[in-house]
Amino acid sequence: MADKAQIQDAIKTQGEVVRKLKTEKASKEQIDEEVAKLLELKAQIGGDEGKHQFTLKTAKGTRDYNPKQMAIREKVFNTIIRCFKRHGAETIDTPVFELKETLTGKYGEDSKLIYDLKDQGGELLSLRYDLTVPFARYLAMNKITNIKRYHIAKVYRRDNPAMTRGRYREFYQCDFDIAGQYDPMIPDAECLKIVHEILSELELGDFRIKVNDRRILDGMFAVCGVPDDKFRTICSTVDKLDKMSWEDVRSEMVKEKGLSEEAADQIGQYVSMQGGMDLAELLLQDAKMSQSKQACAGLTDMKQLFSYLQLFQVTDKVVFDLSLARGLDYYTGVIYEAILTQTGPVPVVAAQKAEEGVSVGSVAGGGRYDGLVGMFDPKGRKVPCVGVSIGIERVFSIMEQKAEASAEKVRTTETQVMVASAQKNLLEERLRLTAELWNAGIKAEVMYKKNPKLLSQLQHCEDSGIPLVAILGEQELKDGVVKLRTVHSREEVDVSRAELVEAIKKRTSDV
Amino acid sequence: MADKAQIQDAIKTQGEVVRKLKTEKASKEQIDEEVAKLLELKAQIGGDEGKHQFTLKTAKGTRDYNPKQMAIREKVFNTIIRCFKRHGAETIDTPVFELKETLTGKYGEDSKLIYDLKDQGGELLSLRYDLTVPFARYLAMNKITNIKRYHIAKVYRRDNPAMTRGRYREFYQCDFDIAGQYDPMIPDAECLKIVHEILSELELGDFRIKVNDRRILDGMFAVCGVPDDKFRTICSTVDKLDKMSWEDVRSEMVKEKGLSEEAADQIGQYVSMQGGMDLAELLLQDAKMSQSKQACAGLTDMKQLFSYLQLFQVTDKVVFDLSLARGLDYYTGVIYEAILTQTGPVPVVAAQKAEEGVSVGSVAGGGRYDGLVGMFDPKGRKVPCVGVSIGIERVFSIMEQKAEASAEKVRTTETQVMVASAQKNLLEERLRLTAELWNAGIKAEVMYKKNPKLLSQLQHCEDSGIPLVAILGEQELKDGVVKLRTVHSREEVDVSRAELVEAIKKRTSDV
Repeated sequence: MADKAQIQDAIKTQGEVVRKLKTEKASKEQIDEEVAKLLELKAQIGGDEGKHQFTLKTAKGTRDYNPKQMAIREKVFNTIIRCFKRHGAETIDTPVFELKETLTGKYGEDSKLIYDLKDQGGELLSLRYDLTVPFARYLAMNKITNIKRYHIAKVYRRDNPAMTRGRYREFYQCDFDIAGQYDPMIPDAECLKIVHEILSELELGDFRIKVNDRRILDGMFAVCGVPDDKFRTICSTVDKLDKMSWEDVRSEMVKEKGLSEEAADQIGQYVSMQGGMDLAELLLQDAKMSQSKQACAGLTDMKQLFSYLQLFQVTDKVVFDLSLARGLDYYTGVIYEAILTQTGPVPVVAAQKAEEGVSVGSVAGGGRYDGLVGMFDPKGRKVPCVGVSIGIERVFSIMEQKAEASAEKVRTTETQVMVASAQKNLLEERLRLTAELWNAGIKAEVMYKKNPKLLSQLQHCEDSGIPLVAILGEQELKDGVVKLRTVHSREEVDVSRAELVEAIKKRTSDV
Repeated sequence: MADKAQIQDAIKTQGEVVRKLKTEKASKEQIDEEVAKLLELKAQIGGDEGKHQFTLKTAKGTRDYNPKQMAIREKVFNTIIRCFKRHGAETIDTPVFELKETLTGKYGEDSKLIYDLKDQGGELLSLRYDLTVPFARYLAMNKITNIKRYHIAKVYRRDNPAMTRGRYREFYQCDFDIAGQYDPMIPDAECLKIVHEILSELELGDFRIKVNDRRILDGMFAVCGVPDDKFRTICSTVDKLDKMSWEDVRSEMVKEKGLSEEAADQIGQYVSMQGGMDLAELLLQDAKMSQSKQACAGLTDMKQLFSYLQLFQVTDKVVFDLSLARGLDYYTGVIYEAILTQTGPVPVVAAQKAEEGVSVGSVAGGGRYDGLVGMFDPKGRKVPCVGVSIGIERVFSIMEQKAEASAEKVRTTETQVMVASAQKNLLEERLRLTAELWNAGIKAEVMYKKNPKLLSQLQHCEDSGIPLVAILGEQELKDGVVKLRTVHSREEVDVSRAELVEAIKKRTSDV
């Protein structure tokens, strides 16, 4: 670091430069530039006369989670993990960054959104973009050919953040995947069952799960006369149908992507179709569709899938929708996406929706990706995979808004009892009792003050929802008892020290 | 990339180099080096038909966690979180990266170990190096003046990894901190109580918690005649006393750092001292030590701390140790570090210790950092803080080795029942029953095969520790029952469909 006196001199000189410019009424840019230099010098020196000017913020598109948000997140995660475990899943974890080459070539155009680490000597690394590619790398690396696993972790995309709608640059994914060579559509049906269970349990309002198949899409494009090399780009246009009208989609196909009007119109007829097993049967008979082997394979599987979904009792929410396309390159078979269809119980979101003209949209999605693991295997050995990803950030923002709107307070601690005193000089006794309770497994707090006021101890209980107060006083100590106060009813009873733990457990178990 | 023919030529030449060395019986190191070059060239050109040769690995110093490791990790985390919650802590989360400037100037020399993100246009970002600086940034940014929080998350250091000893470049920290203006030593004592509780509950063997105070260290340096500007560097030499003998430490002080022999010897007398409250009392009377105001303040607080530790019943493990220094710049008062003192129940670690000459070492550490939040606050407002960080990776590696050594199998799923069949064509019935169980909250699995063999269904239960099998057959379906088999005893009973859920719950609750 440069000498302090030197910097102070430089600050003085630079201060004069700024003052001079201001007197001369120089341009704002010029003044700002010199002020910036001045601040930089001041930052170097630190302290009161040139305090460090930190930009007090988180990186763009990221956020801190405060205790209240964490409490909500914990509740959501618990519901989701309980479901994943109910379905016999194990969990794994992978590093937050991968070798850059592991991620390249998996995300198509979106590769530009990958965060690279600086080359500081060593390997070239990038932050993970999703949990699916690291999962495939993990399977290939460890030669695992079958596993049912979940993985909940953060992923990173240098995307345009839209934080009010729960779209961040750092966000959680909750993935459940089944890898292995199995009889068709059984694992796929379980993924949809899981989405159904989780969205029902989270009580986010009504939802619908759209299902389609990449093979049906490809077959449809073929029989409609889309040239082979335009499948992907036409597919990504179809994917916009949830945000754009058919007219606009058609126009993009014809005008921007050079598709014939005839082909576009034929696609238009198909992508308006929705149904269930009946639609799959109908299309298997369809004069055009039935000409595509691929489409027929997809449609046969779709029928099979719906038969399992009936057994799982989830057909009320699942719809076979020919307009569902999904962007990622790696899908090879069934694809699906869950959307919330009513925002009734979430007035704030509804208001935002009206304002921004955008719904909370997709809250889960996934599909079959039978080729991805093979891309990593030195011998190209394939491991068929199917999985689903829960869009947890969107769920969080709905839950947060629900919590805001609700009268009920979110507790951020689980403390059962506050050890308090109305008298002075009882810190040691309070600490002794608190330790007794901790040792007995009771969640207890004590104020870090020698002589706190009883009112402030009770106020803390009100504020943080602590249900009980164990009050110590000279008399109680003499009698070998503790005054146990129930915060909400203000009832007080004397309980002997020996029975205190039981008394607390009894009172908090039925809270 | 270089031209393919060129690389093939280079491979040929390099192959000859290797063969020549082998013929010449050159040293292993030399051969290995040239083989490495050969492999690198081969990697450039790709495999059999020119297939993409991915380097199938995780980034240096990082690892995947497999399901077994995750099961152990979950158990450890649960113990730790339970303790944090018992002490009334809330939790927060901060992003994995911070503005680069947020981290600069906090870690002294170790700043070179910070991972920077590539400048891809936008802000300059770095991966977090610990959870303490982001916590301080969070407090200052949100103007929070008191909070008791825990934070469990990964941090990143481009350090030299030593993975057998649980030292990674990506690793978890479990931090518990108390921020706020409180009466002295009460929150500090709670941090030590927490370390005591967690290390006891994890059953890692015996441990000791060393305690010291930066003010006592500084006072000691002053009265021993260390020049002001050498405090930090002499402090970091003292910090090596757990790895180096006093003779070597003394020599570093005198020869490398230019301290007088007399001063070094005086330091040597102090840093050999260990004790409890009595030692603090003794030093308060010490002719030299008592001349330092700073040391006296630290010693008075140390006495106070021990009086609270007595109330918390943890003095059996805590020792006031004048040799404890700790590296980080931001500590201002009490500092502590927990070490495992016996590796008895962990034979593998003991063996490694003998082999590598290094113990598993510190498993927790922390201290008081009253100045850090003020560094972020635009007005320099201070928020006193004290905290502790559990070295969870080291705990993991001990637990993993314990699990290896133990006969007991680690379960990676919680599945209670496998829905099976001995007969063909019962897939639909199996799926139907499985869905019934899922809907009733039972953790159930079913094989994704149309007609799996009963033996392979039972084998899966053995392998993954599933305790029960619900067996369906034609007869059972006709009778409206399920054959419920207990895997370990091979007992089988017929249970009516209506009573199945209860029967499973009853049998798995006492497992």
